[in-house]
Amino acid sequence: MKGKKSLRKVRAAHQAVKPIKKVMRNISKTIGQPAGTLQHIGEQKTDFPAITVFGYDADHEFHMPLKSIAECTALKDKQKVLWVNIDGLHDVSVIEALGKLFDIHPLTLEDILHTEQRSKIEDFEHYLFLVFRALDCDAQTGEITEEQMSLVIGSNFVLTFQERPGDMFDALRARITSPGTSVRKRGADYLAYGLIDAIVDSYFVILEQLESRIELLDQELFETSGRDTFESIYLLKKELILLRKSVRPMREIINSISREHYTVIDDEATWPFFRDVYDNVIFINETIETYRDIVIGMYDTWLAIVNNRMNEIMKVLTTIATVFMPLSFIAGVYGMNFRSMPGLEWQWGFYVLLGFMGMIVAGMMVYFRTRKWF
Amino acid sequence: MKGKKSLRKVRAAHQAVKPIKKVMRNISKTIGQPAGTLQHIGEQKTDFPAITVFGYDADHEFHMPLKSIAECTALKDKQKVLWVNIDGLHDVSVIEALGKLFDIHPLTLEDILHTEQRSKIEDFEHYLFLVFRALDCDAQTGEITEEQMSLVIGSNFVLTFQERPGDMFDALRARITSPGTSVRKRGADYLAYGLIDAIVDSYFVILEQLESRIELLDQELFETSGRDTFESIYLLKKELILLRKSVRPMREIINSISREHYTVIDDEATWPFFRDVYDNVIFINETIETYRDIVIGMYDTWLAIVNNRMNEIMKVLTTIATVFMPLSFIAGVYGMNFRSMPGLEWQWGFYVLLGFMGMIVAGMMVYFRTRKWF
Amino acid sequence: MKGKKSLRKVRAAHQAVKPIKKVMRNISKTIGQPAGTLQHIGEQKTDFPAITVFGYDADHEFHMPLKSIAECTALKDKQKVLWVNIDGLHDVSVIEALGKLFDIHPLTLEDILHTEQRSKIEDFEHYLFLVFRALDCDAQTGEITEEQMSLVIGSNFVLTFQERPGDMFDALRARITSPGTSVRKRGADYLAYGLIDAIVDSYFVILEQLESRIELLDQELFETSGRDTFESIYLLKKELILLRKSVRPMREIINSISREHYTVIDDEATWPFFRDVYDNVIFINETIETYRDIVIGMYDTWLAIVNNRMNEIMKVLTTIATVFMPLSFIAGVYGMNFRSMPGLEWQWGFYVLLGFMGMIVAGMMVYFRTRKWF
Amino acid sequence: MKGKKSLRKVRAAHQAVKPIKKVMRNISKTIGQPAGTLQHIGEQKTDFPAITVFGYDADHEFHMPLKSIAECTALKDKQKVLWVNIDGLHDVSVIEALGKLFDIHPLTLEDILHTEQRSKIEDFEHYLFLVFRALDCDAQTGEITEEQMSLVIGSNFVLTFQERPGDMFDALRARITSPGTSVRKRGADYLAYGLIDAIVDSYFVILEQLESRIELLDQELFETSGRDTFESIYLLKKELILLRKSVRPMREIINSISREHYTVIDDEATWPFFRDVYDNVIFINETIETYRDIVIGMYDTWLAIVNNRMNEIMKVLTTIATVFMPLSFIAGVYGMNFRSMPGLEWQWGFYVLLGFMGMIVAGMMVYFRTRKWF
Amino acid sequence: MKGKKSLRKVRAAHQAVKPIKKVMRNISKTIGQPAGTLQHIGEQKTDFPAITVFGYDADHEFHMPLKSIAECTALKDKQKVLWVNIDGLHDVSVIEALGKLFDIHPLTLEDILHTEQRSKIEDFEHYLFLVFRALDCDAQTGEITEEQMSLVIGSNFVLTFQERPGDMFDALRARITSPGTSVRKRGADYLAYGLIDAIVDSYFVILEQLESRIELLDQELFETSGRDTFESIYLLKKELILLRKSVRPMREIINSISREHYTVIDDEATWPFFRDVYDNVIFINETIETYRDIVIGMYDTWLAIVNNRMNEIMKVLTTIATVFMPLSFIAGVYGMNFRSMPGLEWQWGFYVLLGFMGMIVAGMMVYFRTRKWF
Repeated sequence: MKGKKSLRKVRAAHQAVKPIKKVMRNISKTIGQPAGTLQHIGEQKTDFPAITVFGYDADHEFHMPLKSIAECTALKDKQKVLWVNIDGLHDVSVIEALGKLFDIHPLTLEDILHTEQRSKIEDFEHYLFLVFRALDCDAQTGEITEEQMSLVIGSNFVLTFQERPGDMFDALRARITSPGTSVRKRGADYLAYGLIDAIVDSYFVILEQLESRIELLDQELFETSGRDTFESIYLLKKELILLRKSVRPMREIINSISREHYTVIDDEATWPFFRDVYDNVIFINETIETYRDIVIGMYDTWLAIVNNRMNEIMKVLTTIATVFMPLSFIAGVYGMNFRSMPGLEWQWGFYVLLGFMGMIVAGMMVYFRTRKWF
Repeated sequence: MKGKKSLRKVRAAHQAVKPIKKVMRNISKTIGQPAGTLQHIGEQKTDFPAITVFGYDADHEFHMPLKSIAECTALKDKQKVLWVNIDGLHDVSVIEALGKLFDIHPLTLEDILHTEQRSKIEDFEHYLFLVFRALDCDAQTGEITEEQMSLVIGSNFVLTFQERPGDMFDALRARITSPGTSVRKRGADYLAYGLIDAIVDSYFVILEQLESRIELLDQELFETSGRDTFESIYLLKKELILLRKSVRPMREIINSISREHYTVIDDEATWPFFRDVYDNVIFINETIETYRDIVIGMYDTWLAIVNNRMNEIMKVLTTIATVFMPLSFIAGVYGMNFRSMPGLEWQWGFYVLLGFMGMIVAGMMVYFRTRKWF
Repeated sequence: MKGKKSLRKVRAAHQAVKPIKKVMRNISKTIGQPAGTLQHIGEQKTDFPAITVFGYDADHEFHMPLKSIAECTALKDKQKVLWVNIDGLHDVSVIEALGKLFDIHPLTLEDILHTEQRSKIEDFEHYLFLVFRALDCDAQTGEITEEQMSLVIGSNFVLTFQERPGDMFDALRARITSPGTSVRKRGADYLAYGLIDAIVDSYFVILEQLESRIELLDQELFETSGRDTFESIYLLKKELILLRKSVRPMREIINSISREHYTVIDDEATWPFFRDVYDNVIFINETIETYRDIVIGMYDTWLAIVNNRMNEIMKVLTTIATVFMPLSFIAGVYGMNFRSMPGLEWQWGFYVLLGFMGMIVAGMMVYFRTRKWF
Repeated sequence: MKGKKSLRKVRAAHQAVKPIKKVMRNISKTIGQPAGTLQHIGEQKTDFPAITVFGYDADHEFHMPLKSIAECTALKDKQKVLWVNIDGLHDVSVIEALGKLFDIHPLTLEDILHTEQRSKIEDFEHYLFLVFRALDCDAQTGEITEEQMSLVIGSNFVLTFQERPGDMFDALRARITSPGTSVRKRGADYLAYGLIDAIVDSYFVILEQLESRIELLDQELFETSGRDTFESIYLLKKELILLRKSVRPMREIINSISREHYTVIDDEATWPFFRDVYDNVIFINETIETYRDIVIGMYDTWLAIVNNRMNEIMKVLTTIATVFMPLSFIAGVYGMNFRSMPGLEWQWGFYVLLGFMGMIVAGMMVYFRTRKWF
Repeated sequence: MKGKKSLRKVRAAHQAVKPIKKVMRNISKTIGQPAGTLQHIGEQKTDFPAITVFGYDADHEFHMPLKSIAECTALKDKQKVLWVNIDGLHDVSVIEALGKLFDIHPLTLEDILHTEQRSKIEDFEHYLFLVFRALDCDAQTGEITEEQMSLVIGSNFVLTFQERPGDMFDALRARITSPGTSVRKRGADYLAYGLIDAIVDSYFVILEQLESRIELLDQELFETSGRDTFESIYLLKKELILLRKSVRPMREIINSISREHYTVIDDEATWPFFRDVYDNVIFINETIETYRDIVIGMYDTWLAIVNNRMNEIMKVLTTIATVFMPLSFIAGVYGMNFRSMPGLEWQWGFYVLLGFMGMIVAGMMVYFRTRKWF
């Protein structure tokens, strides 16, 4: 019972959201502008950009919110690891100031602001730039939202850019503030691993939510298989297509980290952790493919069940027509007004005729059995 | 409401245009001719070929229309960057003269004139030759038109050939005429990047237009799903097939620019910009694939909805037939003219029979509920 | 007869088990935890972890169950080959102690405990780590269960981890305890081969069971092809999708063993045996693909048969309606109460009309024959 | 009007030709014979083998038909370029003599005579052997015929073997006989390019013919979409499958010419021309794939239209039945012969009942509108 | 007429044979046995294993049946080429003795005896081991049978193992016994080529048989397209799936012979012959793919024709119902027993009503024409 309700909620949510909108949005706004022009492309998802900074080594740690990037200047190069996180990208001046401070290429800043990017990895001289599509799933409606997450990984700093504040990195933050954890003992590259791992983990929540929807549909399929069921399958298939588009590029990105030996990921010890993330990404990709095969199979099944039901409906119709048309005809014949018709005057005529009709019905039944209609 | 109108406009436009014509046209005209024979293959899309020339370095700039290629001779080799643009290809002598001036291989000239080429890149000793399919989308009808855009990139010149004048490069022209822009500071390879970027950007407009049509169809699908809807899906699918054919080769072309280290693109600084274009081309390719998956899903959905509706129609028919055929038969039996039939003379016979009929109807209803037809 | 029963049993079993659940389970539990945290993820499938140890060389052999890992310390490094097998993974302390004793990396221990891993191979300095999905098939219901099998292969030891006790390695154990067998003469890498071979062999049992189900369905398809048949095809297809997901990664794993020259598999003589396993894995993969093609063909066939049957039903309906509707109409005409109608008073009128009706029926029959409906 | 006629002609032609026969023919005739046995496999398509010879350099040129290969001996090695063309392969002795004269490997001669070869390229010490499938399209019926074209390219000679005389090389012959053309100035490799280019050009004629058929079908599809239309789609699809089989291997052959640096194609200048042919071959391959996608889309569309039409037919049937079955029943009730039925004696009874029937019809209409059946 | 009969024979044969059985059989029998255990897996297809031996060089030749392998010892190493052929594999001792004599690895012997192997090539120090699936086609019923053919190729000997005696190598045997043939002049590698060529040639017979069945089906499809036709298509598709599984691995095997430079194939002159076989194998693979595309197209066509026929049946039904339901209703109205109905008493009432009915029919006809139902 609960299952069906949540399916219905999902359907309602989707009709409101129109997930197709996610594919491409607003890109034409920048057409004709020179490369490197900074302009925020995307919805404004938060009021003020929130800047938070973490600095730590094995022994010391501090974290605080910042009002402006200027406050950050003093901190730079004095920490073993400095993590600056920015939630909200619509204030271009903040991004610009940060870019100047950490010497980021204008094309990188442009990519951070254009929030409809394909996931990618780009190696610059003194930093590594990564763009990911992070997914979030509303616990209530099952609505999947997507946001762009950009990472700039330097030798002793990590910058992260999110479109809106989220709880994705809360566990990681907790581990940074606890002394003695592995993240405290290691450098910026291990922090980057922790962040990427958190993003990849967020996909697993989506997969679980999709799996439970598939299970519910699987049941509904053989029970009702009405048009509602079909719409759910259609939505699920479309979401899997879009999800695959988001997830597929991650495979080659994480693979390139473990293969290309980027300078900022110098610690030999970090490599096995990235291989672990890589295994997860492959697992996610394969699971999406498997779901897709299953959902395509569901569509076929839905169609087969509808066809089968049609068959049964037609059998009922044909049976009824085949039985009653001849009978009605006979009754019609004896309803004609000819003066001389045999048997009309005979006392048992009516009953004999009824008996004859009964025999016809019996004959039909035998015929239907032979054809295995029942 | 507006949405439906624009869909209808798209359909009407397409029935007029017959987009299938775009696939291959007139190629057989040249069969049997020796390689390098110059002859314009394609429709004449403009009256006179318009020749315009831009010359600039960081400090100076000039631009003017030319009446003949001869005027160009004086300008050659005296500018840091010389850009000659030709709109309209039907005057073979203009192309020939330009070819002689800049020492272009006859096969290249032939390819410029045969406007049904596949996109490609060819490296000659002193220049790089590129052919692209530029797309334009009529704002009114949504009709997509395609034209061939040829680029010849030399060390200090760029030649562009279009079938008809367009506004695709207007923003770039504006930046050239403004002093201090990045294009003014850099060489011919950066100009080439600017031109290719403008061509790639033109695809995004098409994608947005396609996306809005997909959204409209997505709504229409579950609302009406008549034959009109299907024709729209069919047209969309065919356009995506043709679009993919145009766009797919660009991937390997742009990739080869960033990989092959062509001599005319010697500036190390230009490379990140081409990588940016490459990301865009991959994004466009993947978006087209995603659209295709969605449109194929729509076709399946349309068929499923039609099947489902058939099911419902058949249920109505079968219900009506199953209820009224037996009733009519009974009425027919009591319409027979046998002399002795039980109950005819009885005062309440008629009402008892009607009651009996009512019971049959009630029984049917129970049966239908059991089969979950309502 | 027996065949049909077993198909029905399979269907019943599957409705109880919901095999879709196997795809992904409980992974989100670990989200937010630092890498290397040991926690058992999966169902507890046995009460106590059972530890058994085998030590042997060509001349001596012993085997015994252990109560704790501590007992194992004395045995380590004193045997030519030491095999420690653990059934049941829920007691994290056992795994941890074993890890400490044999110097296993924390990420390996984490992977052993997370029983939803994708099959993989990982090379560490002094050991090789392999994860497989072992399949088991209930002889009664045909229900396929999956468990994770982890192998740690060192230079002179092999550790195996199973989720629950099984008889998969019984034949191998028997060969170890018999003096003079090839396994006794060779090292730990040959033991590893024996274990992997046993896992791969377990797939063949599944394939045979699937093949016999396909054969049964093949018969049922052309005999009944009801909705039951379709559900069986649907289940079979879904199982093949999941099975492929389990088996596909094995190909590259076994291939990497024969290609990468891992240090722990130093014996040149072991290589041909792994190539043999590799042939088997390719054979299994191809057989699954072939089954899938066949099962997809079955779905098409089912649909075609249902469509064909519909055709025949409609022919019956149309024949009946086409014959009796005109007849009933004629009877209806002569049932009208007009005073003057031709022939009503005529003695032979009734018989002439019946004859006329007979001629109509004959005409219809000729028409149907022409259209090849019979 | 003209379009439809030509479609009908194509259909008729195909029913006569049975194009499937082209796939494989007569190969089993040679089974059991030792390799290198010369025997003509294929239909005899001409009466006598016609031998023609062209010899030329930049200044001189001659051409003449030959009666026997013996006449050729004197010419060999005295010309810059010698081209021997043979139309008709059934006279094995001619092929054998030519083989001896130019020192051709027995396997090559065997391949020339077995006219069901797959296109291929083989490098022998002193010559390059190429086999192509040349296509010809009957201008009247659109019937596509295929023949094997073999080329032996030596350093100063080219041998061509056709199954029957054709006009494919006429333009090339004209250029050879005109002094000053590029073919006269260059060597045997340029002649080979000219021949291959002519073969590839012949595909464009086929593509245009196919495109015009696709256009006609595209119109017919939405107008009639009867069984004729479907048969045309089926034929087109089958032809595209066979065409693809013929064309696909050419891609790798032409590619290997521009990549492998064969000794007989020593002239650096010839290479850009082969790259041009390569572009054409890729274009042809992609166009065939695009046509295939379009034709598959047509099949789906045809089915959808037929389904849609069925829907409309069923709506008409259901409407009629739903309206008239209840009415007929009511009429039947008042046709019963009960003595006491209410209203029968009443003067306005008949009209009141008709009015009641009219109300039922009106109610039905409202119901149908609600369901959007009209 | 003959064609249809043979199709029916094929169908009957297949229902008896259950070709699906061929996919995997009896493999589970060996599970748990140590590698290298010799045991015959497969059906016993002959009574006694027949051992025949051929020895030859350019001048001498002898051949004779052997009773035991022991007789062979004397012959070994005394012939230029020694060919031992064994028909029937169930006598393990024969294989074992031969293995000992020619020093064959136990895993090779095991593979020879397990007759469900995938085709493969394995290089051992002093011999090359090949396994093929040879196909045979019953001339009467068209039933395709498969057997495993193993070849052991040494520097001066070839061993062949067949499951049952066949005539596949008869032509080769004839050539060996004739002095002066090329096989007599060359070594063991040329003999191996001859044997493999004979196996590959046997596929062509199958292809021809399949092609003639496809042609017959192609005709039957548009003529009858009943359920029989569909079953034939289904069988054909399944056979093509299994055939592809047998043939596909051959491509890489033959390719590896011409690429890997195995020591036993040392003669440079043998290589062009293997390339010839390779071309044949590619041709066979592509032909099977083409057949598959055609057969899949046939399935779609069958479904389309059945749908189309349904459409026509429904048109007939709807026409009949639409015409006669209103007419019957009108007749029913005038069959009611109201006292006062207009026209009943009128002399021409009957004829006027019939005329009115005729007008309704005419109106219907016009309506149907408008909808293009006829």
